[in-house]
Amino acid sequence: MDAMMMGMMSQDMMSMPGMDADMDMVLMQACMDACSACEQACTVCAVQLMDGCSPACMNCADMCNTMMRAMMRMQGMTPASMMAMLDACMAMCQTCMDECMEHADMSAVCKMCAQACQACMDACMAVKNSMMMAA
Amino acid sequence: MDAMMMGMMSQDMMSMPGMDADMDMVLMQACMDACSACEQACTVCAVQLMDGCSPACMNCADMCNTMMRAMMRMQGMTPASMMAMLDACMAMCQTCMDECMEHADMSAVCKMCAQACQACMDACMAVKNSMMMAA
Amino acid sequence: MDAMMMGMMSQDMMSMPGMDADMDMVLMQACMDACSACEQACTVCAVQLMDGCSPACMNCADMCNTMMRAMMRMQGMTPASMMAMLDACMAMCQTCMDECMEHADMSAVCKMCAQACQACMDACMAVKNSMMMAA
Amino acid sequence: MDAMMMGMMSQDMMSMPGMDADMDMVLMQACMDACSACEQACTVCAVQLMDGCSPACMNCADMCNTMMRAMMRMQGMTPASMMAMLDACMAMCQTCMDECMEHADMSAVCKMCAQACQACMDACMAVKNSMMMAA
Repeated sequence: MDAMMMGMMSQDMMSMPGMDADMDMVLMQACMDACSACEQACTVCAVQLMDGCSPACMNCADMCNTMMRAMMRMQGMTPASMMAMLDACMAMCQTCMDECMEHADMSAVCKMCAQACQACMDACMAVKNSMMMAA
Repeated sequence: MDAMMMGMMSQDMMSMPGMDADMDMVLMQACMDACSACEQACTVCAVQLMDGCSPACMNCADMCNTMMRAMMRMQGMTPASMMAMLDACMAMCQTCMDECMEHADMSAVCKMCAQACQACMDACMAVKNSMMMAA
Repeated sequence: MDAMMMGMMSQDMMSMPGMDADMDMVLMQACMDACSACEQACTVCAVQLMDGCSPACMNCADMCNTMMRAMMRMQGMTPASMMAMLDACMAMCQTCMDECMEHADMSAVCKMCAQACQACMDACMAVKNSMMMAA
Repeated sequence: MDAMMMGMMSQDMMSMPGMDADMDMVLMQACMDACSACEQACTVCAVQLMDGCSPACMNCADMCNTMMRAMMRMQGMTPASMMAMLDACMAMCQTCMDECMEHADMSAVCKMCAQACQACMDACMAVKNSMMMAA
């Protein structure tokens, strides 16, 4: 998501009870970008059709897309559903990263995918932490 | 998902460490069906463009589709990621149902959507409970 | 999609310039069901991780879901975009079916997937034909 | 999609009968990026819940995501299905752009969304043209 699009998302669109409006715009933008990058990395990795990681990559691609879209529709979230979605996204990224790390030496795509999963987990955790501090 | 397709999903496809293979096939099938029905109800409800519920319906439709697909790719799940996804799906259904119940008297579509969310939550809880008993 | 949900989708939701309102409800319902069944069959088939068909199955699952959702949001379609989407869905089902038929003797899942693709193509063609007759 | 990820997508992953392998990598990368940006713009625009454009934006977001993913799984495409998908994506972007242009004076989000649709159409057309020249 580029800065122009982010700027155009009104505070009203992005804000949710329990989050500090100024803080979350920056963390949320980073998190949406990390989700998008992770969906793409997982989609590319899944099509290698490796026994170990492909099914996890498909699951992670779908979860990251769903997470990204939900952050673009914060009017339709509550703190409880947002927390649960962040936890699910982090757990799915962890599962996918663990599988991909097994082949990181053999496959540069798996290594890249594992890094994208780690970055997505970190970005989700930053949003979650900001929500817990604001609550 | 019809019985033929379900029968063709091998035990290997569906089973995951920590779940009883025989029990979960029935509960999982019911849960995938409930997720699919909920995605459809939420998609139809979202396009009513009601301030209160539409964004929640869009989020819920995406989450239910992601949950259904993940249950078709259990090789790519761990008990931890499965539990977190079930929690997220239940939380998202709760958020959507709460919004739709506000208009259930005015809109038959919202009422139907709320019922689909409730059924999806129940089906996810049944799978979660079976996993906790098996663990 | 069950009859109750279909009945609740208002004529306004489903109708589009160039389609006969009474005729298309039945064909559209059949097509949405066929798209949903095909998405599920393709998702199950893709996770077999067969070189020949898995990438086509992943593409077909996504296209069928997108087609189904678009038919639930006909206010957001024109005859031109509807025709192009139906053509894309049929072409993607053809590609997936051709790949799965190569393994239909070896894999009951591929055989089921090919049948679901054929049924989805037929249902899309029926909607397309009804649109061309109404135009 | 960043350059690193693109570089890691092997020629084998990206190439398809009927496309020049060297040419399409650059055009395909631009097209995947345009699809991703358009999905995001449409998702943000849809949640404004405007009668005119929201359903078209939801349809366009789904189609662009499906198109992007298909370009990451070219092993699962044929020239015929690729052409049909590109046509569908362009048609859906046209429909969405036409709706959003109606409110472009009132809504900066609609204006941004219309621009993202135009850019996505242009990028799809460039890929289509390169395929027709190579055929």
